[in-house]
Amino acid sequence: MLIVMKSDATREQVEGVKGRIREIGFTANEIPGPTRVAIGITGNEGPIDPGLFTQLPGIAEAIPISRPWKLVSREVKPDDTVVRLGANAQIGGGHFGIIAGPCAVEGREQLNLAAHAVKRAGAHFLRGGAFKPRTSPYSFQGLKEDGLKLLAEAREATGLPVVTEVMDTRDVPLVARYADVLQVGARNMQNFSLLEAVGEQGKPVMLKRGLSATIQEFMMAAEYILKQGNYQVILCERGIRTFETMTRNTMDLGSIPLIKRLTHLPIIIDPSHGTGDRQSVPPLARAAVALGADGLMVEVHPDPSKALSDGPQSLTPDAFQELMGSLRAIAAVVGKTI
Amino acid sequence: MLIVMKSDATREQVEGVKGRIREIGFTANEIPGPTRVAIGITGNEGPIDPGLFTQLPGIAEAIPISRPWKLVSREVKPDDTVVRLGANAQIGGGHFGIIAGPCAVEGREQLNLAAHAVKRAGAHFLRGGAFKPRTSPYSFQGLKEDGLKLLAEAREATGLPVVTEVMDTRDVPLVARYADVLQVGARNMQNFSLLEAVGEQGKPVMLKRGLSATIQEFMMAAEYILKQGNYQVILCERGIRTFETMTRNTMDLGSIPLIKRLTHLPIIIDPSHGTGDRQSVPPLARAAVALGADGLMVEVHPDPSKALSDGPQSLTPDAFQELMGSLRAIAAVVGKTI
Amino acid sequence: MLIVMKSDATREQVEGVKGRIREIGFTANEIPGPTRVAIGITGNEGPIDPGLFTQLPGIAEAIPISRPWKLVSREVKPDDTVVRLGANAQIGGGHFGIIAGPCAVEGREQLNLAAHAVKRAGAHFLRGGAFKPRTSPYSFQGLKEDGLKLLAEAREATGLPVVTEVMDTRDVPLVARYADVLQVGARNMQNFSLLEAVGEQGKPVMLKRGLSATIQEFMMAAEYILKQGNYQVILCERGIRTFETMTRNTMDLGSIPLIKRLTHLPIIIDPSHGTGDRQSVPPLARAAVALGADGLMVEVHPDPSKALSDGPQSLTPDAFQELMGSLRAIAAVVGKTI
Amino acid sequence: MLIVMKSDATREQVEGVKGRIREIGFTANEIPGPTRVAIGITGNEGPIDPGLFTQLPGIAEAIPISRPWKLVSREVKPDDTVVRLGANAQIGGGHFGIIAGPCAVEGREQLNLAAHAVKRAGAHFLRGGAFKPRTSPYSFQGLKEDGLKLLAEAREATGLPVVTEVMDTRDVPLVARYADVLQVGARNMQNFSLLEAVGEQGKPVMLKRGLSATIQEFMMAAEYILKQGNYQVILCERGIRTFETMTRNTMDLGSIPLIKRLTHLPIIIDPSHGTGDRQSVPPLARAAVALGADGLMVEVHPDPSKALSDGPQSLTPDAFQELMGSLRAIAAVVGKTI
Repeated sequence: MLIVMKSDATREQVEGVKGRIREIGFTANEIPGPTRVAIGITGNEGPIDPGLFTQLPGIAEAIPISRPWKLVSREVKPDDTVVRLGANAQIGGGHFGIIAGPCAVEGREQLNLAAHAVKRAGAHFLRGGAFKPRTSPYSFQGLKEDGLKLLAEAREATGLPVVTEVMDTRDVPLVARYADVLQVGARNMQNFSLLEAVGEQGKPVMLKRGLSATIQEFMMAAEYILKQGNYQVILCERGIRTFETMTRNTMDLGSIPLIKRLTHLPIIIDPSHGTGDRQSVPPLARAAVALGADGLMVEVHPDPSKALSDGPQSLTPDAFQELMGSLRAIAAVVGKTI
Repeated sequence: MLIVMKSDATREQVEGVKGRIREIGFTANEIPGPTRVAIGITGNEGPIDPGLFTQLPGIAEAIPISRPWKLVSREVKPDDTVVRLGANAQIGGGHFGIIAGPCAVEGREQLNLAAHAVKRAGAHFLRGGAFKPRTSPYSFQGLKEDGLKLLAEAREATGLPVVTEVMDTRDVPLVARYADVLQVGARNMQNFSLLEAVGEQGKPVMLKRGLSATIQEFMMAAEYILKQGNYQVILCERGIRTFETMTRNTMDLGSIPLIKRLTHLPIIIDPSHGTGDRQSVPPLARAAVALGADGLMVEVHPDPSKALSDGPQSLTPDAFQELMGSLRAIAAVVGKTI
Repeated sequence: MLIVMKSDATREQVEGVKGRIREIGFTANEIPGPTRVAIGITGNEGPIDPGLFTQLPGIAEAIPISRPWKLVSREVKPDDTVVRLGANAQIGGGHFGIIAGPCAVEGREQLNLAAHAVKRAGAHFLRGGAFKPRTSPYSFQGLKEDGLKLLAEAREATGLPVVTEVMDTRDVPLVARYADVLQVGARNMQNFSLLEAVGEQGKPVMLKRGLSATIQEFMMAAEYILKQGNYQVILCERGIRTFETMTRNTMDLGSIPLIKRLTHLPIIIDPSHGTGDRQSVPPLARAAVALGADGLMVEVHPDPSKALSDGPQSLTPDAFQELMGSLRAIAAVVGKTI
Repeated sequence: MLIVMKSDATREQVEGVKGRIREIGFTANEIPGPTRVAIGITGNEGPIDPGLFTQLPGIAEAIPISRPWKLVSREVKPDDTVVRLGANAQIGGGHFGIIAGPCAVEGREQLNLAAHAVKRAGAHFLRGGAFKPRTSPYSFQGLKEDGLKLLAEAREATGLPVVTEVMDTRDVPLVARYADVLQVGARNMQNFSLLEAVGEQGKPVMLKRGLSATIQEFMMAAEYILKQGNYQVILCERGIRTFETMTRNTMDLGSIPLIKRLTHLPIIIDPSHGTGDRQSVPPLARAAVALGADGLMVEVHPDPSKALSDGPQSLTPDAFQELMGSLRAIAAVVGKTI
């Protein structure tokens, strides 16, 4: 923490701040300057709340220096975290993992067709929503437990581990009974009770970045899960909200190289939700591999024109198969395996 | 819903879209144009999902015409909704209601000092957080049930109804036992399970706008609550996230006149969280009355420099008392009572 | 400037940074910390470019401490700057100044009707666009020099000083011949050549905040004008671009109290362009006075339904007259004169 | 244009709108609906200004249907525009073009070292700023005409065509005398006078997207140039301004596939300015090729640690050479040549 005093701060005010720092048990290092004094605080073990200082008289600003996160940091754990489920499903550590399937579980036949199609094309995980967060209370809300059962059947049939969303702390035990990876959606990224509840389960968690979450808040949300002792967390970038309206969201691909330096957790990209546009999914998926992301989540539906939700962004099985070919070729260029 | 065809759409594609519209049971109205055809859909009772059409061949865009909300709309209920709790606490319908108190309940003495101070200055409701949503898992998370008990004591002592946040569906019954108004925080504005759970309680709900929520999403979140049969909802604007970083959030005051036209629900403003800056709170509070908002939520702490959270944005009891005077004078100009 | 070293920076790297600081002629103040070292730089007279340091090995971050502006700062000039034109037109220093008139000058009759109407209602300045920046090259671009002549006639007839926009450095001498206040529009806020060119004229300048300009960039743009020796600058907040689309722009009223503390320059509000909606203009205008702004720019058209541009946001003369009454009443509450 | 009437609009109001549409010379097509009437307008040749209608009584909304651009549209010109300068420099039409060089021209030696280095590594164009737009009037503003002369010398020496920025309409003839491609910077994207002035020159123009420009505004800015008869325009995405502050800007890569469908103009990516971070440039450059962009602008400096501006984002010649290898490999996967 660095305290910057106002240019007209009095000597008493400077001493007042230094006194306060010592009271809390830290050390105050005065840095005299041409127009104003600054005071560096040392002796703290973690981040300090700027609010402890900003209201003292004479202070212009309190600038945090340390990052507020700890367990997610690469400074604490330099090696990549790898999430592995069985022999074939792996995300992180040089392996580019692919999660594919329909947006929502709509019925046995739809799910089975999708699951076999993505398996055939080489996906490593099956996705499908049983509990669907919808902006409107009048939209289809998912098949709930029936959907979870169908997902378990599809896993049985294909061998693919299942990724599905949980939205309510009360449903965590139920969803954890069926799912292999618990997904926390973008709207719930700062539902701290839910983060703690999924953290307490022993299963991997996929955490989607909130629409208006900063990278720092994204790291802190993951920190809530790791703090429960669960280090099996996959981050997922799915677009942020900006002023642009011709694309559904703005995919923040430029943050991926930075996030890879900040944290040991793997990060994947979801171009289906990010763009909402089937034609944009393959180019963005190729960009994800080229960028150094650790994987991809992509929606595939046996007949997108009949999908109950998000049809316009779903790939057909054929388009997905074709995409997989180019992903493998680019992965080879950047030294990853798929 | 208006379907706009591509400029090179074939006659077959136009007929295909019209056929699909009829299949769903609606009427297709073709509008020929100089460069392209559009098709208006009529016969529907509510909004139609654009996704039903956007993937048909030849379609350029599907533009929704009706608003997706219903129960919150002023078209459905033209008169102002008024939230009343006892003789003195009222928000909406020409009454500017004031909710004041500390950010967090920190202990019996702090809360009592604050409660009596805001009561003396003329506030109508007491606020105080017992469950605190914090970005960092390492920050103070609130006194939880002990905090709720202290709030109930303070209500007993001052007669002020109590507004407090609930964050977890599992805690709704507990919080509803103590609180008069259940607050849903900005980060949970699209926690749909929580919206349904608070809607099922018989008590008024204060719904804060999410940091990146559009006005439309804000309306739809309120719709989730009203759909449970609970019409006692107070909206609260508390700033949105933008590119500007010198202010904590950007107070979206310009949306208030629009929201007043869209919905019958009362809307109040929270300049304490919106600005995070004690010196900006009084001018923004005065602007809120001048604008035609229905009330204000403002943080008051007996000794802000010792607050465990959000001290820099809390007013002292004296500053709050002084503010109340100018609010009353402006209210008189715009024809409101406080 | 504060340099924060990486947690694994070596002693050599720390010494390297300190050496570099000394090379440039400044003093390096090492601040040892529990997990990392920071180095405060002193001895500089103004802000230092962080780029001088960020690429040295071992550096995590370079954090600027001083504000980059100088002439616009209240630390340099504590008293309010007041822009006065004749006996009646004044903005700043406790006087709330009102600029009103049509968006664009469309013809002699339209402008005269508008000018007399706003004069009668009590406006202090006449606005009107002769050069119009338009998103589309196919939209009406203004009457150009003919419009300037009509503005000069209207000034003659009403005694109101004239505010009008200049968009091109080549037109600055021409516009300055006719206008009393040169307006730099939002899209040109960082057209640095234009800022210098208007700064070199002896006339007051009204500088509109860019749609995506930070407060810091807004201050720096004003600094470009003051640096030419021209201190007669009026700032104008007219809404920023955010994710919200139901309002045209997001009026950043919450920044006004902060800007009043940062700079001695007066700041006014333009709710007509900010909201694009006639019904929202009066409430926001009232909020502007309540907030402590120094004035208002508002569009008034004799017959808004026939306006060539921005009709939907223009007030009728009657609505403007009525608005003036409530503005005066609120000004009295906050201790301003109109 | 589609006019949506309010749900309580009277028959007179509907007829009033239809009368107005006929007055202007267009055709009104009434679309009756269950809760409200809509009116489609046909007979127009281009976009209609919504402002012509939004203030008539009874209207809820006026929704534009046609895109406002024309010359830049792929509907008007389906084939890719290719910008070619000599035998080796080509952007668009399946060729991925690379523009490289220092941020600013600092002197003869620096520029020559950079120019030969980028030529050796395989770049097709040389970039270098002679006129530098800077947020602060106290920062280095470029060598101006001296810089242009050095660029011409470097072209002579290497054969690489030169791309450089022009900021002031008064300087367009001067810059056009030296440059091969005139760059319009992000801050001037809506400096309409400058767009017209560069359009009137016979030389290719590189137009950077404004920090807060929508895709629609970006298209319209290009339209200003094409309207002068100059079709040799290269679009450049360089990041937009969002709430995220850990990255300098947010690269909007997700818009590239959409822009490729909207317009025939080539679009390139500038990861150096977009990220401001040397380590993020190579992954984003690889993503650009994978995405289907038409080229890249990348900053290369012989000794980034001594650069007068933007050193932290500049690649060393060695890093650039290495990057070129992976770009070629990915280009082969997606069917492009470099």
